[in-house]
Amino acid sequence: MKKVTVYVTLREAVLDPQGKAIQESLHSLGYEEIRDVRVGKRLDILVEDKEDLEQRIIEMCEKLLANPVIEDYRYEVEEVVHS
Amino acid sequence: MKKVTVYVTLREAVLDPQGKAIQESLHSLGYEEIRDVRVGKRLDILVEDKEDLEQRIIEMCEKLLANPVIEDYRYEVEEVVHS
Repeated sequence: MKKVTVYVTLREAVLDPQGKAIQESLHSLGYEEIRDVRVGKRLDILVEDKEDLEQRIIEMCEKLLANPVIEDYRYEVEEVVHS
Repeated sequence: MKKVTVYVTLREAVLDPQGKAIQESLHSLGYEEIRDVRVGKRLDILVEDKEDLEQRIIEMCEKLLANPVIEDYRYEVEEVVHS
């Protein structure tokens, strides 16, 4: 079994109104030191071992998990250690 | 300037219907090897240097960025290197 963590983030050129809203809320709470907030997703996925695991993860990201027009993605694969 | 990355994830005991929906979509696309999907947030925050930076990040997480009743958070702080 593998644990795959996928991070999906908006591309730099894409406006992030949710991030801006969080930034303004933080300012209004007194955290004036915040200069920028960008919101992304983190997906924790548990996958059965397969030979072409990485190729299939890339496919899943491009077909469903990320929108390649406005988002970038990155993933990490770890072995699941049974305790 | 510091770059703070905050990961907000649902606690293990909390149901994640969005994750389940993604898992089912992946199954219907033929990715039967997926055993579990959990959806979390990733926040990329740019902050001016402050002496009590970490203490303020913890406060921001507990007041606004995470819901401590159902979510856990974790953060990483990096120096911003100007190129």
